[in-house]
Amino acid sequence: MGAYRSTGEFQRDRNYITSRITADGRDGYPVEPGRYRLVVSRACPWASRAIIVRELLGLQDVLSMGVCGPTHDQRSWTFDLDPGGRDPVLGIERIQDAYFARFPGYERGITVPCIVDVTTGQVVTNDYAQITLDLSTQWAQFHAPGAPQLYPEALREEIDEVNDLVFRDVNNGVYRAGFAGSQEAYAAAYTRLFDRLDWLSERLSTRRYLVGDQITEADIRLFTTLVRFDAVYHGHFKCNRDKLTELPVLWNYARDLFQTPGFGDTVNFDHIKRHYYEVHRDINPSGIVPLGPDLSGWDLPVAPRI
Amino acid sequence: MGAYRSTGEFQRDRNYITSRITADGRDGYPVEPGRYRLVVSRACPWASRAIIVRELLGLQDVLSMGVCGPTHDQRSWTFDLDPGGRDPVLGIERIQDAYFARFPGYERGITVPCIVDVTTGQVVTNDYAQITLDLSTQWAQFHAPGAPQLYPEALREEIDEVNDLVFRDVNNGVYRAGFAGSQEAYAAAYTRLFDRLDWLSERLSTRRYLVGDQITEADIRLFTTLVRFDAVYHGHFKCNRDKLTELPVLWNYARDLFQTPGFGDTVNFDHIKRHYYEVHRDINPSGIVPLGPDLSGWDLPVAPRI
Repeated sequence: MGAYRSTGEFQRDRNYITSRITADGRDGYPVEPGRYRLVVSRACPWASRAIIVRELLGLQDVLSMGVCGPTHDQRSWTFDLDPGGRDPVLGIERIQDAYFARFPGYERGITVPCIVDVTTGQVVTNDYAQITLDLSTQWAQFHAPGAPQLYPEALREEIDEVNDLVFRDVNNGVYRAGFAGSQEAYAAAYTRLFDRLDWLSERLSTRRYLVGDQITEADIRLFTTLVRFDAVYHGHFKCNRDKLTELPVLWNYARDLFQTPGFGDTVNFDHIKRHYYEVHRDINPSGIVPLGPDLSGWDLPVAPRI
Repeated sequence: MGAYRSTGEFQRDRNYITSRITADGRDGYPVEPGRYRLVVSRACPWASRAIIVRELLGLQDVLSMGVCGPTHDQRSWTFDLDPGGRDPVLGIERIQDAYFARFPGYERGITVPCIVDVTTGQVVTNDYAQITLDLSTQWAQFHAPGAPQLYPEALREEIDEVNDLVFRDVNNGVYRAGFAGSQEAYAAAYTRLFDRLDWLSERLSTRRYLVGDQITEADIRLFTTLVRFDAVYHGHFKCNRDKLTELPVLWNYARDLFQTPGFGDTVNFDHIKRHYYEVHRDINPSGIVPLGPDLSGWDLPVAPRI
């Protein structure tokens, strides 16, 4: 997933398979109902974006979804939740099989989310940042009637700007704190994270959503980190200035999204907790999964906002 | 400090040096002003009890105190805070030297708190549970005028009962959660801990102190765990159903004590955090110390109580 600089700073491996599934099929992968399968884990924040976008856009019937179990070994994610441990559509046990089918000996990260071409069993892309944007733009003719515009042209510049800040300081910031190899690298990540959360609280104190007056891709990307905050990042990644529940504006905003269909109903806290605490033995050698926190607050009423 | 049963349950080594310093000197160690030195670390909850009791009883001038640094190596606590790394009264660098002076090759835990006989340089006792009771009862003639009765005869039975429950489920309970060797052992400790904290919240909802209407030994023993709760036990020991700040009765009670002279002014959060996170490499391999939580709430006003 990443490596360390000499300063102890965690660096995410950002080299993904960048083939795109497009309306015009320019990369050899035209949008086509029933042809592709989205593979995810409900534990993973990057995959959770795609789960939510697929739900909100009503693409469930045209793009099927395979779900990996919450934990994995060195050879990465498996379909251990499925009968016989095999994905019923792809017929494979490990997502690495779809990667190797396209690139024998593939050496980069075997990651979720990815999209597999069911006709060949080969992975098409695992470029998570592009996947959700393409679901919004390239798959438009298959969106459900009345589906939201998550990446509308008029707001793209602002969405991209916010996404960039949120990725650097929040989405990836929690990993930079948790996997820091030195006190200094940790402190830098922690400070950037909470400074950015304060900035987001300020921004959201006068508006319901991050950009415009509608849910966009920017909200989805922030949500997937916020929903994991108290359950894993607060303790496991030492992001502990405050719990999300102690940041009133962000906590209310996160609950507002959680209670919107397509968000909370896709979240599995058990998968989230087991993944982080069982897989990252380098920072949690015992593999013991905390019983807390009390998560019942997610269902509390949302305070009226703008 | 302890060992594991086959069930993964952490067991504290409870074999201490049980010689007592008494008014009648029956063990060869009579109470005597200036003769003994209490050795502590401000990081350690067991030592912190003795620090607080010594303050409340006004024994500072008759029983001197040496303070070890917050971290230590395999050979235990050192006087690294003192000029030249030596305790100015005992002249030693490591408290093990006082243990070995009395018992060459001493193989049990080298622990704080302990009391050393300055005239011989030999440790007298490290029996932390008895040390504070003896400061209250055996040293009575040297208590400051108006010093509180922390272990009054009329309340002893009830104090002992509460102390026993609090030791088992809370003081030692957090360690049983944090050092559990199996998910089952952790879950059992976690459940007992929070059940007991709920019981304590209930008890303290109608009274200011745990036993009687005055501060007693029972309050001191609960306080030393509560004051460390959010700073270390919540994340490091996975005691994360709630933060102390989310348990209104206990949080108010803990602040009430914290703001009482002899309590909060003896607490060093930096020492506490560095000790747990730097020393326990088995559960925090990186040794990175979290920057959170925000501790400013300890100075918030205390709500009026009974």
